[in-house]
Amino acid sequence: MADGAADGAGRIEGFLDLDLDRASRRGAPEAVLCDAKSVEQVAAIVAEYARLHATGRTDLGPVLFTRADDERAAAVLAALPDAHHDPVARLLAWPAEPPAPSGGLVIVACAGTSDLPVAREAELTARYLGRPTRLIADIGIAGLHRLQSRLPELREAACVVVAAGMDGALPTVVAGQISAPVVALPTSVGYGVAAGGQAALMTMLSACAPGIGVVNIDNGYGAGHLAAQIARWAPAPGE
Amino acid sequence: MADGAADGAGRIEGFLDLDLDRASRRGAPEAVLCDAKSVEQVAAIVAEYARLHATGRTDLGPVLFTRADDERAAAVLAALPDAHHDPVARLLAWPAEPPAPSGGLVIVACAGTSDLPVAREAELTARYLGRPTRLIADIGIAGLHRLQSRLPELREAACVVVAAGMDGALPTVVAGQISAPVVALPTSVGYGVAAGGQAALMTMLSACAPGIGVVNIDNGYGAGHLAAQIARWAPAPGE
Amino acid sequence: MADGAADGAGRIEGFLDLDLDRASRRGAPEAVLCDAKSVEQVAAIVAEYARLHATGRTDLGPVLFTRADDERAAAVLAALPDAHHDPVARLLAWPAEPPAPSGGLVIVACAGTSDLPVAREAELTARYLGRPTRLIADIGIAGLHRLQSRLPELREAACVVVAAGMDGALPTVVAGQISAPVVALPTSVGYGVAAGGQAALMTMLSACAPGIGVVNIDNGYGAGHLAAQIARWAPAPGE
Amino acid sequence: MADGAADGAGRIEGFLDLDLDRASRRGAPEAVLCDAKSVEQVAAIVAEYARLHATGRTDLGPVLFTRADDERAAAVLAALPDAHHDPVARLLAWPAEPPAPSGGLVIVACAGTSDLPVAREAELTARYLGRPTRLIADIGIAGLHRLQSRLPELREAACVVVAAGMDGALPTVVAGQISAPVVALPTSVGYGVAAGGQAALMTMLSACAPGIGVVNIDNGYGAGHLAAQIARWAPAPGE
Amino acid sequence: MADGAADGAGRIEGFLDLDLDRASRRGAPEAVLCDAKSVEQVAAIVAEYARLHATGRTDLGPVLFTRADDERAAAVLAALPDAHHDPVARLLAWPAEPPAPSGGLVIVACAGTSDLPVAREAELTARYLGRPTRLIADIGIAGLHRLQSRLPELREAACVVVAAGMDGALPTVVAGQISAPVVALPTSVGYGVAAGGQAALMTMLSACAPGIGVVNIDNGYGAGHLAAQIARWAPAPGE
Amino acid sequence: MADGAADGAGRIEGFLDLDLDRASRRGAPEAVLCDAKSVEQVAAIVAEYARLHATGRTDLGPVLFTRADDERAAAVLAALPDAHHDPVARLLAWPAEPPAPSGGLVIVACAGTSDLPVAREAELTARYLGRPTRLIADIGIAGLHRLQSRLPELREAACVVVAAGMDGALPTVVAGQISAPVVALPTSVGYGVAAGGQAALMTMLSACAPGIGVVNIDNGYGAGHLAAQIARWAPAPGE
Amino acid sequence: MADGAADGAGRIEGFLDLDLDRASRRGAPEAVLCDAKSVEQVAAIVAEYARLHATGRTDLGPVLFTRADDERAAAVLAALPDAHHDPVARLLAWPAEPPAPSGGLVIVACAGTSDLPVAREAELTARYLGRPTRLIADIGIAGLHRLQSRLPELREAACVVVAAGMDGALPTVVAGQISAPVVALPTSVGYGVAAGGQAALMTMLSACAPGIGVVNIDNGYGAGHLAAQIARWAPAPGE
Amino acid sequence: MADGAADGAGRIEGFLDLDLDRASRRGAPEAVLCDAKSVEQVAAIVAEYARLHATGRTDLGPVLFTRADDERAAAVLAALPDAHHDPVARLLAWPAEPPAPSGGLVIVACAGTSDLPVAREAELTARYLGRPTRLIADIGIAGLHRLQSRLPELREAACVVVAAGMDGALPTVVAGQISAPVVALPTSVGYGVAAGGQAALMTMLSACAPGIGVVNIDNGYGAGHLAAQIARWAPAPGE
Repeated sequence: MADGAADGAGRIEGFLDLDLDRASRRGAPEAVLCDAKSVEQVAAIVAEYARLHATGRTDLGPVLFTRADDERAAAVLAALPDAHHDPVARLLAWPAEPPAPSGGLVIVACAGTSDLPVAREAELTARYLGRPTRLIADIGIAGLHRLQSRLPELREAACVVVAAGMDGALPTVVAGQISAPVVALPTSVGYGVAAGGQAALMTMLSACAPGIGVVNIDNGYGAGHLAAQIARWAPAPGE
Repeated sequence: MADGAADGAGRIEGFLDLDLDRASRRGAPEAVLCDAKSVEQVAAIVAEYARLHATGRTDLGPVLFTRADDERAAAVLAALPDAHHDPVARLLAWPAEPPAPSGGLVIVACAGTSDLPVAREAELTARYLGRPTRLIADIGIAGLHRLQSRLPELREAACVVVAAGMDGALPTVVAGQISAPVVALPTSVGYGVAAGGQAALMTMLSACAPGIGVVNIDNGYGAGHLAAQIARWAPAPGE
Repeated sequence: MADGAADGAGRIEGFLDLDLDRASRRGAPEAVLCDAKSVEQVAAIVAEYARLHATGRTDLGPVLFTRADDERAAAVLAALPDAHHDPVARLLAWPAEPPAPSGGLVIVACAGTSDLPVAREAELTARYLGRPTRLIADIGIAGLHRLQSRLPELREAACVVVAAGMDGALPTVVAGQISAPVVALPTSVGYGVAAGGQAALMTMLSACAPGIGVVNIDNGYGAGHLAAQIARWAPAPGE
Repeated sequence: MADGAADGAGRIEGFLDLDLDRASRRGAPEAVLCDAKSVEQVAAIVAEYARLHATGRTDLGPVLFTRADDERAAAVLAALPDAHHDPVARLLAWPAEPPAPSGGLVIVACAGTSDLPVAREAELTARYLGRPTRLIADIGIAGLHRLQSRLPELREAACVVVAAGMDGALPTVVAGQISAPVVALPTSVGYGVAAGGQAALMTMLSACAPGIGVVNIDNGYGAGHLAAQIARWAPAPGE
Repeated sequence: MADGAADGAGRIEGFLDLDLDRASRRGAPEAVLCDAKSVEQVAAIVAEYARLHATGRTDLGPVLFTRADDERAAAVLAALPDAHHDPVARLLAWPAEPPAPSGGLVIVACAGTSDLPVAREAELTARYLGRPTRLIADIGIAGLHRLQSRLPELREAACVVVAAGMDGALPTVVAGQISAPVVALPTSVGYGVAAGGQAALMTMLSACAPGIGVVNIDNGYGAGHLAAQIARWAPAPGE
Repeated sequence: MADGAADGAGRIEGFLDLDLDRASRRGAPEAVLCDAKSVEQVAAIVAEYARLHATGRTDLGPVLFTRADDERAAAVLAALPDAHHDPVARLLAWPAEPPAPSGGLVIVACAGTSDLPVAREAELTARYLGRPTRLIADIGIAGLHRLQSRLPELREAACVVVAAGMDGALPTVVAGQISAPVVALPTSVGYGVAAGGQAALMTMLSACAPGIGVVNIDNGYGAGHLAAQIARWAPAPGE
Repeated sequence: MADGAADGAGRIEGFLDLDLDRASRRGAPEAVLCDAKSVEQVAAIVAEYARLHATGRTDLGPVLFTRADDERAAAVLAALPDAHHDPVARLLAWPAEPPAPSGGLVIVACAGTSDLPVAREAELTARYLGRPTRLIADIGIAGLHRLQSRLPELREAACVVVAAGMDGALPTVVAGQISAPVVALPTSVGYGVAAGGQAALMTMLSACAPGIGVVNIDNGYGAGHLAAQIARWAPAPGE
Repeated sequence: MADGAADGAGRIEGFLDLDLDRASRRGAPEAVLCDAKSVEQVAAIVAEYARLHATGRTDLGPVLFTRADDERAAAVLAALPDAHHDPVARLLAWPAEPPAPSGGLVIVACAGTSDLPVAREAELTARYLGRPTRLIADIGIAGLHRLQSRLPELREAACVVVAAGMDGALPTVVAGQISAPVVALPTSVGYGVAAGGQAALMTMLSACAPGIGVVNIDNGYGAGHLAAQIARWAPAPGE
């Protein structure tokens, strides 16, 4: 194939090759990480999805567009105007309607208000992968009573995503109090040695409580995806 | 209480305070990390378990003693002679008999023969936490056919622990081919920039495939514990 | 010589000293790395090339101007208006016409669309050093089938440059499947621990498959230069 | 002075120069860090103290010898046989009797039994600097109830030293529950990213609770010294 | 509670949960770190404080708003127009009047004029927590006479905060000359290996003089908070 | 298959899975990295090769055993007594006879005598992969005349492996003087910031001369393997 | 003194304390590092110098203002309009006239044109401290002939400052060829692992040739200052 | 030449190539770094020197053998029994007699007794390169009076080498008080963040006082060499 030629199956020679097979292979469709791509590249990818959809394919979604700033979000919405856009989480989902919830409850908890964008990205990802979800904010360990008053809720979850920056100690404390697995999500919130999330990441990997799986710094999408997989077989909340 | 006084509930003042409540709170009993403790400390802890057991307590186990070298293993066996000891995994379990398997299958896969001790620690931990387990060795990505011939097996698992040192790329490749969650377990196998497992850890955290939770380098216990929690609600293999 | 005086042989005292001898000594002429130079410095260097060319020298090219942003590219084109400019690769070549291809095929493969600028810089460099080249995009290992469908092509190459960011695992997988040398080109695409390309670089240096030479992060020019040298003696594609 | 000549005031030319003035200047006498000195050097320093003492000087102590292994401890005891030696803390004190306690209570708390040597070094240092002290062991945050049952005690202290390795999260949690200052003492207990105490140090510096001063990894002496200074003016326990 | 619902006690569901209990528990009220929060988040937090105040609560202050740039400071002042604003320290305090000074003197000393913003933040924090304070500027150790002429003053303090960037050696020198505890405050002033404050931090942690507690880089708030706690029981200056 | 069962094709279930296909797929057979394996593991792998050989397979070699200390070398020689053993390079080859040389000359140059073990490993690897080879020692750049007297020789090579520790500057200087590709091989020779080879690695990756591919620190095997691939198509020396 | 009060000897209470004694104590007057100071701070310092000068002091200069961007340079020139300003070096000197040259020749050599600003800062500093100086540009080691043609000149110097970014190998090569001391000046020119000058710094510290003293990255002022001190006693060039 | 053949001019093919030209080119003969060489390699090098000496060459010395442990020292003394051996400095010199002193005084000062081995290596190197030398020990900055009582002596030196581990702050303080250049020599004395000398190195590179050139950690030889070059032209002490 010559460069730039589309082949009808998600490949544009010399440019991209969509992983359309992923939903059947992995149970979750592909996501498009926007921030390392130029606006033109995002637009071209969205156009290919729109083109495939126009040919009648119905197995493409829900596709998530992550880490999309205003400019890239506009490029997505230009071609897929009915996508859902959450500017705080910098995420778009197409089609806009998430699947009917199934499996166990995914709770996303975060240590401070500054962690909310990443926490929200995790929650939405789990929801678009089909889980019931809830968000609990601002339960940092500098005041343990805030966490303790939330323990009954946290114990209802089949998986808890805990987002924290700074010292990143919250996942350890949560994991020590519940029986469900914890997905630890370090955020880049912090300064000095905590800048960029390095301190939080190291704390989480070194947690003295077992039952914690760590994802990359600010990787809300990955945390939500993993949580959705973990909660897949668990009983629905209340069962 | 004066220093050194035992209180009948796992506390020796000024020395240790066992977390006997953990099994009821978290669904898995405490483990004793041996390598940072002196032989005398290990012996004292084991003696406390034996003492509590002699008082008739039946809710203490199975207790795992991890990262136990020969000297520390001997200290454990001196007080608990019926414990199970796996020298390759450097792990002891007491009582020796694991619980009857329940929940989904946990597969532990490792990239090379050098990763076997850590992989085996993960497998035994999951087994003593009650899951059916299996170990697949030496499927490094330098020869993809070895991995590919194992894919049908890997797709039976409710959770796959993937242990790898050196470049640590195996978890990404596995996660991209299956729908179950992957616990990525970096090992300290390697030299140069891979020394101590740093390269493997960074690769796993940066994996371009979602669905991966990472644990600390050589933390086979933590990987197996997390996998057992993840597979808890999944259907038994073959169902 | 006084500062600022030109000597007719590429030296301006107190400012620069061109390596005009490089083509005869190394088989490839000098390249000008633009991004660490001021626009004025770039303009002065280009003017010196133009001046030497005007004196009748015919052994100067092709000169490559790398990592040139719009402003620096304009400075090059102002003095050498017939240069070739590829804005995606941020590269200019003068004279515009590459040499007739000789030696074996150089394939540049990249893991994602975000790696395209660096991959394109590598491809153009190899082409201007005289090799036949081809670019294969978006064959990340999260979906192995994309790579596997390209293996027959990759096996035609005398040298494969593999560009990847994030986990940087693609060069290992490619090297494990072919007999030609692989030049591993880490890109700065990624966030968290992958930010700046560090994780990709470490993965590539730790690759468990032999036959890989690594270059600096985002060094598309160096990768293409090395690949052109490697493929120099190999049979032409199809022979 | 010629090399090796003693001057009667703690200086041996070309070898050492004791800071005998420190007790009057700083309120605490000098300490001798043994582990970076040869056995011969330690012996020579001890001999100089013994020589000065024999001349009738009474203002030299209590001198602390820190990080002394068996061989160096023997060298100290050879010249100062009435010194107090704590092998767990690897510390010797001369004269053996600590000053009568004054000021507020210093509590040293540690997360695990592996942290005991460093914690004990901190406690003894504070005691030999004249404070009432107490040690609380094994209150890691993987089981919060252990910490919470100790809160009333911790709130009696004028300063709490908190020693922890691994994730190093305990000082944050303690500081968030009490009004006294916390001295955070990272220990080198841990493996993987926690090896050498780096993760614990970063966590403590990034603590989201204020009121924490951090010392170097395994610096039990420095932590105890600082705590003794902090508690100097506080009311005695029970007042 | 539904997301966004306020509960009358400082909690807005899914967004924040103020630690209003901190003054009684810790002796110092909560502070709001502004720079990692969006302007909208800062405004919402301030509004909640204003709302609680309007309900008649009188135990909320003084609340400090730290690391507030012009935009965030304006958001605070919009809702709390009578707050005190120090633009150099990037700090706001509400109510504006600090408590009557009690306890020992806190001196904040800094090495260079570039360290003044962080030093000033430390001084104001200690003052709003109720201590008498003083600031001494520009006594870097490249010229020791500047420090030495200030020693009598420094010896009056119950606690000295020493802020320094570059080599960060000033706290060691100060601590070696006085008997009061030193809070070492590394600043991000510097370039090359000193960039971001890393060199200063490492120097301070490695200080060969005991009696130093270190806080995170640029953490003026934390340094002032700790100093205020340390000086709490000391005699007032001049007593 | 049950654990420990051999399948006649290089797989022992639960332990290893030899990549016997590599010679046909990649043109070079598998190598066994010994230092991360236990002596028992090495012995088991060697036994499997011996067993396969006894069944009449003739396509297994030459197999290289790398990084073998005395104990592991003895384990290899016990089962394959006719293997070649080079103790300086810590390498064994079986069968002992290298293939007849073909392709271009591979020269391995090293900066100091301390780099000889790694350089020798690279040379032997290239020789057992079928290239003519030569070793040039001790041409560090602190005395350029040593390098310059060797330039005519170096220009005969189709590929030059340059091994260096400390500052690692030799590959840049060599690459700047020749037209063949350079494989840069950092060694762990050095102390202070050069300890472990980190400085040499960074220098080589940052080389201001193009035409350099870098391998991991002390990876003599990888360097020799790559050089053999690079020189495959080049004219034999003297042609 | 109250804050803000000037004392007639270079001190403004609570703000700055000039080291006016430095010329007599160290033989070189103070320099003002501008980039970490606000424009207001720079202006206040310059005003203090102008005020002291107006009182008749004649021993203040030459004062150097380093790392001054356009805005800060304007602030200096506003109060000291007769200062010399070199925008490339970002340096101002007041008074404008350097002292009459004495001592040995200081040569500043740099590897590439991108290193010129820092090299020029070093040269001007040495000149204003009283040495004869010369600048040699663009003699990177990728083409050794450029360096070799300059060796006779370099051997005339009493001290050579060598500025280089990227691999930073030039100082080693120069030091190996001359008998005068070399001041190695790493620059932040580079990308990937060379970003910020780290690779160059490590190379220079690890140099296999002795006779090299290293300064901080981009510290042209420090390099020039040290070179001027070193060359102080050497014979004048040509003697 | 065949491997192992000696050429009569310091080259043994395939093994070493002595830089016999260095004394005439650089003014100081070669040194042999022993610790990265095997005992056999050291013996072979020494034998070559002895062989050349036996042929009547008189321009070989003084040769220094650095970082020689007992075993390597014995190998040197076996062939050169009249060499001088300083076990503390781990250095041997041959011939044993240093040159008559010329040039300015080199003082080596060290912060603590633990720094003595490296300081002594620096002093002996400067002495064998022909300078008058003196050693001042144990003047760490935790007690400034020890340094201040030595200032008159330090001001006599033409160059001061300052060795320090831990916080490494001594060179800054010394440089701020004298007019001669300072060679800063970080030592690996320290623990925690100071382990291996990293903190000391960073402090020295970031020193806020100019006039400091830094060498690699524990590089006493390099520091002494540089100091000898710097002091070459200075007046003799007392002149």
